[in-house]
Amino acid sequence: MELSRISSNPKIAVDAMGGDFAPTNEVIGAVQASNENPDIEVYLVGRREEIINVINQNKLKFDFNNIIHADEIISMGENPTTALRQKPNSSISIGTRLVKDNKADAFVSAGNTGAVVAAATLILGRLKNVERPTIGSYFPNSSGISTVFDVGAFVDSKPQHLLSYGILSNIFVKEIYGIERPTIGILSTGEEEEKGTKVTKEAFELFKKTNLNFIGNLEGKDILTGKANIVICDGFIGNVLLKFGESVPKLLKHMLTEYANKNLLNKIKIGLLKNSFKQAMTPLDPNLYGGVPLLGVNGNCIIGHGSSSALGIKNMIVRAKEMIEKNIVNKIEESLKEYSNIG
Amino acid sequence: MELSRISSNPKIAVDAMGGDFAPTNEVIGAVQASNENPDIEVYLVGRREEIINVINQNKLKFDFNNIIHADEIISMGENPTTALRQKPNSSISIGTRLVKDNKADAFVSAGNTGAVVAAATLILGRLKNVERPTIGSYFPNSSGISTVFDVGAFVDSKPQHLLSYGILSNIFVKEIYGIERPTIGILSTGEEEEKGTKVTKEAFELFKKTNLNFIGNLEGKDILTGKANIVICDGFIGNVLLKFGESVPKLLKHMLTEYANKNLLNKIKIGLLKNSFKQAMTPLDPNLYGGVPLLGVNGNCIIGHGSSSALGIKNMIVRAKEMIEKNIVNKIEESLKEYSNIG
Repeated sequence: MELSRISSNPKIAVDAMGGDFAPTNEVIGAVQASNENPDIEVYLVGRREEIINVINQNKLKFDFNNIIHADEIISMGENPTTALRQKPNSSISIGTRLVKDNKADAFVSAGNTGAVVAAATLILGRLKNVERPTIGSYFPNSSGISTVFDVGAFVDSKPQHLLSYGILSNIFVKEIYGIERPTIGILSTGEEEEKGTKVTKEAFELFKKTNLNFIGNLEGKDILTGKANIVICDGFIGNVLLKFGESVPKLLKHMLTEYANKNLLNKIKIGLLKNSFKQAMTPLDPNLYGGVPLLGVNGNCIIGHGSSSALGIKNMIVRAKEMIEKNIVNKIEESLKEYSNIG
Repeated sequence: MELSRISSNPKIAVDAMGGDFAPTNEVIGAVQASNENPDIEVYLVGRREEIINVINQNKLKFDFNNIIHADEIISMGENPTTALRQKPNSSISIGTRLVKDNKADAFVSAGNTGAVVAAATLILGRLKNVERPTIGSYFPNSSGISTVFDVGAFVDSKPQHLLSYGILSNIFVKEIYGIERPTIGILSTGEEEEKGTKVTKEAFELFKKTNLNFIGNLEGKDILTGKANIVICDGFIGNVLLKFGESVPKLLKHMLTEYANKNLLNKIKIGLLKNSFKQAMTPLDPNLYGGVPLLGVNGNCIIGHGSSSALGIKNMIVRAKEMIEKNIVNKIEESLKEYSNIG
């Protein structure tokens, strides 16, 4: 390992073995990030030989000293805790430990989400007053993007967990998007305070006691209109919504194809508009948003979609760089102190 | 009231005052349904003068004897139980009571959903072994439609409630769509049996004990691919998903407009493809699906979207006719006996 040298450049460890197209997309994306951001020190964590193969096959330039060998791979379907126990030398464990040991400033992975969350929680530890870390995600809206917390780190959240998702995400959105007081709403079945589940109604009371920019309940229709910068929900509903949302473009494509197959005129029309449609829908591509942050752990961690493209991986690294430079973890720690008496 | 005469034709009471565009869309849609289906006896329930005005203004033909006067209106935003108590002569109460008194075979309303559910539950009563009625909704998929139960009748469902949504919807989908053994899945965060909330995991165990065609857990992405005919979830998540799904076309429209506004060429392209796109997206129009059934109460009840068009109202009436003719309520009653020992 060549990591001990002192440098003020952000050092980012990338899981080369996570994701459906690993290590190809991971290596290509990481090298692109490194080339376009010479100030970032990128480390590829995974099977050395496989990583070198991708580098050579794609004629990429990458310092082999920055490959951190990790022999084991946690696959997408594995049970996170079992896998972490059985595979101490997985790219996820070793990558996370680099952050723990201050040899990297962030870990980036498009691998098994549960395993990344578990590794970060176990190895980096939770910040003081955080019972549950949270994963956020981005939903495009008519004026930019909304963020949704939690999208699946944990289910069966208690009211105080929902509050903590708000406290954590408030700092993230403030710092990353430069919004001084992000608007925060609780996802519910109606705007009225009395709408929702037992848990969301109690969370509503907790949020009211804070000085967060809490705007009350949101409905499902408010996410894509951007009614709030931050949408708070249990990880179960966030996970279902995220996966549902991601499946929409596929249905649209299917419907356009069905329409085209009705007759020749339709086929010609759809043929002509296909590219325009694709271009217009670009903002829906999750690869643009650079992965989702895991907040509440003692270190920077970015989680990517299993199907991340090389562009997606590159953007995850750029997002990690922002999180490092903006000192998100420390700012979250400060903010948590302020709210330690609520919930 | 002219309702006491004996007739074997399906008699359907329509809430003329429910919905965002009442009574116009309600009256026009009801008259259309009546004209196109001379075997249906349609009753318009609401303010007599206002109904007659719409009939006259639109030069419609409708037997004024089939107008059932109801003086009060429960508006969309009112608290359901308070409104029902304070307005015993609302169109919702009177319409539901027509079914209770066997003067109508079904009640159809695009009004305040909570009030319709509450009125049906209180006035018609729940079927034996049904603790909670359920509202279903339709989601288009690549091979037709999936149904989702519950979409908001109740939140904080217990495992046995989820099971009962499955038992109720199984009969509805079997009879209405002619699917002998509809596939049923529980909406969760992953396919594996151990994924999900405490409630969904317990419901999984209950479903396994039945002879329903239970295919296990579903993820958010499985709804629009039609992996199951019936998707089971708590009303909180169903409500959020439904409203989220309905907001998607608006975002798409916005994105196409943004793209068009970039330059003249784009504007021309989008101008040309607009109609094709609209036509291709037709299957997304909720007005095609004729409202959603409220199952588990002792009578036929169809609930429509507040923004229902006249076509939507017409299709709700046609759907109610099917429910009557296929004897859904009795068949559900029979089915419930079979499962009375589970849950």
